[in-house]
Amino acid sequence: MNNLKNDIFIKACKRLPTERTPIWIMRQAGRYLPEYRAIREKYDFLTMCKTPEVAAEVTIQPIDILDVDAAILFSDILVVPEAMGMKLEMHEGKGPIFENPIRSESDFNKLKSFDPSNELKYVLDAVKITKRELNNRVPLIGFSGSPWTLLCYMVEGKGTKDFANVKKMLYTAPSLAHKILSKLSNLIAEYLSAKIENGCDAVQIFDTWGGILSQSDYLEFDLQYIHQTIQLVKRTSEPIIVFSKGVHHNFDKIVSFGADVIGLDWTLNLTDVRRVVEDKVALQGNLDPTVLYANQEKIKIEAIKVLESYGYGNGHIFNLGHGILPNIEPENVKALVRIVKEESKKFHSRKDL
Amino acid sequence: MNNLKNDIFIKACKRLPTERTPIWIMRQAGRYLPEYRAIREKYDFLTMCKTPEVAAEVTIQPIDILDVDAAILFSDILVVPEAMGMKLEMHEGKGPIFENPIRSESDFNKLKSFDPSNELKYVLDAVKITKRELNNRVPLIGFSGSPWTLLCYMVEGKGTKDFANVKKMLYTAPSLAHKILSKLSNLIAEYLSAKIENGCDAVQIFDTWGGILSQSDYLEFDLQYIHQTIQLVKRTSEPIIVFSKGVHHNFDKIVSFGADVIGLDWTLNLTDVRRVVEDKVALQGNLDPTVLYANQEKIKIEAIKVLESYGYGNGHIFNLGHGILPNIEPENVKALVRIVKEESKKFHSRKDL
Repeated sequence: MNNLKNDIFIKACKRLPTERTPIWIMRQAGRYLPEYRAIREKYDFLTMCKTPEVAAEVTIQPIDILDVDAAILFSDILVVPEAMGMKLEMHEGKGPIFENPIRSESDFNKLKSFDPSNELKYVLDAVKITKRELNNRVPLIGFSGSPWTLLCYMVEGKGTKDFANVKKMLYTAPSLAHKILSKLSNLIAEYLSAKIENGCDAVQIFDTWGGILSQSDYLEFDLQYIHQTIQLVKRTSEPIIVFSKGVHHNFDKIVSFGADVIGLDWTLNLTDVRRVVEDKVALQGNLDPTVLYANQEKIKIEAIKVLESYGYGNGHIFNLGHGILPNIEPENVKALVRIVKEESKKFHSRKDL
Repeated sequence: MNNLKNDIFIKACKRLPTERTPIWIMRQAGRYLPEYRAIREKYDFLTMCKTPEVAAEVTIQPIDILDVDAAILFSDILVVPEAMGMKLEMHEGKGPIFENPIRSESDFNKLKSFDPSNELKYVLDAVKITKRELNNRVPLIGFSGSPWTLLCYMVEGKGTKDFANVKKMLYTAPSLAHKILSKLSNLIAEYLSAKIENGCDAVQIFDTWGGILSQSDYLEFDLQYIHQTIQLVKRTSEPIIVFSKGVHHNFDKIVSFGADVIGLDWTLNLTDVRRVVEDKVALQGNLDPTVLYANQEKIKIEAIKVLESYGYGNGHIFNLGHGILPNIEPENVKALVRIVKEESKKFHSRKDL
């Protein structure tokens, strides 16, 4: 099926037997790495995303430096709204800003559809270059924001604490929200399909803002459109990971909606979630990212706790419960990778599984 | 036991029969009220907290304006660290700042103990004035931050997204964290006891930052000290409410640690939590605060959903799932109060309960 030299991550996504637990780290191509910062000094963030050679280079850095079991394409979830015609600016320290957020039907009517191979060609080129340069060492993960998460950014236009504008839209103009979400689902599915077609071995849907919704709103405005997206993604056997940060409910529905892997934040207990999903999906996570501030002895204790909470058997992908923080010591991350590779063996060795 | 004209809130805390569900609103004495803003124009926030007549006046405003079933003393959780000797400044738009955060043993050694009737006399005076002016119309709730939540502010010193400093303390100097938390538990218990002694009819522990901890860290660094606090509070029958925002686990433990009421944020389903706690405690919550951006028709639909999710019987206190947002229309809040008072009757009328 694939020519990967290390396909332990893909096997774990499919809950196939592996001799240890695979590990990769959300935002592993990031600011905590001096090698990343050296490149970042030469380009602004969006230029890095849009220059395929550069995106490929920082994507591969953590493979060389950390020895993780998967690469994830360096990019940003906001390239999708930008490809729909929204002017995106990244302000140092203030985060991304859309000058003209979507608040009305007429704003919505200005949104374009796009062809990934045209407006997002630079992403697909980065996929191709990365695949070539990875030379099948490890699989490559592609990603997108979830429809709901992109809607949040598109309606708010900038960072927010209370999500007043997008919540107002849900409650006062729900049909407009549904229209945008539906359009986003289609475009995200095309985008993820194009990533897979160009070489991605798996895709992850980042649902950063699912946790701000009540359970009924999560089903109506978020999970429904993740479902729609998953159904539309063209793939052969490439796994789909769904990571709804802050969401502690409805895991059974995420399973029934076709996710292969559920990503979990660090407030969840893997034992509890595994009991709910009954080995129908793999689980990814969920070390508290701040544990990497500790010394390596403590990191080992906490990493083992995560392995134990998943328990024996296949279908666990080790990761942090959220993206790695910018001021973490790379030596601690390397230690975590070594610890997980070593300590996870015993959870895969029992013959009776 | 009390001379309250309206004691429906207290009865619900004790799961006693009432003819409808009581309602109050977290941060009900706040910026969304023009009457509050008129006073706020004359004083800065901390001066309002420290001037008993002013604190009493804004505490009583929502009783007159909204007709809610309980008053909550206008104050701030950071008056406790301030009484321990930390210099507190409130910066418009930037939030509270402690210039000298607690990061080491020697910082800890500088922290004072306090006698509430001395360093926090202004709070107790505000309790007395409020009780006198409320004239037993409704009960008065006093509150404190939880030990863990106060530790977060004291160690970080200002707003933070990743809580790097306090997490570093947990993982690299846990015994220091435990020492501060233990001291805080004792002082908070004395503070809440003094509020009760001076007239508060119930107290709420605001655990704003419980949700950033893994489950094992929550037990070790947060709930353990809420437990210690509850055990030390001197009270006769005044209920204690525990509100751990963002926490979706360990409700059975919160029950066994002596809380009378558990406050819940809007991501939880009251039916599920009620099943876990088995009517051993009352539940408070949990309308999404952003629903108040909607029109009154939608507010009614969502309020009824919350009532239905609790279901029939006693022991539910209606509230938002977090503090009311500053730019809400007061008319919508009044409508919510009317709706809950009216629509909740049918959940209390069945004879077979």
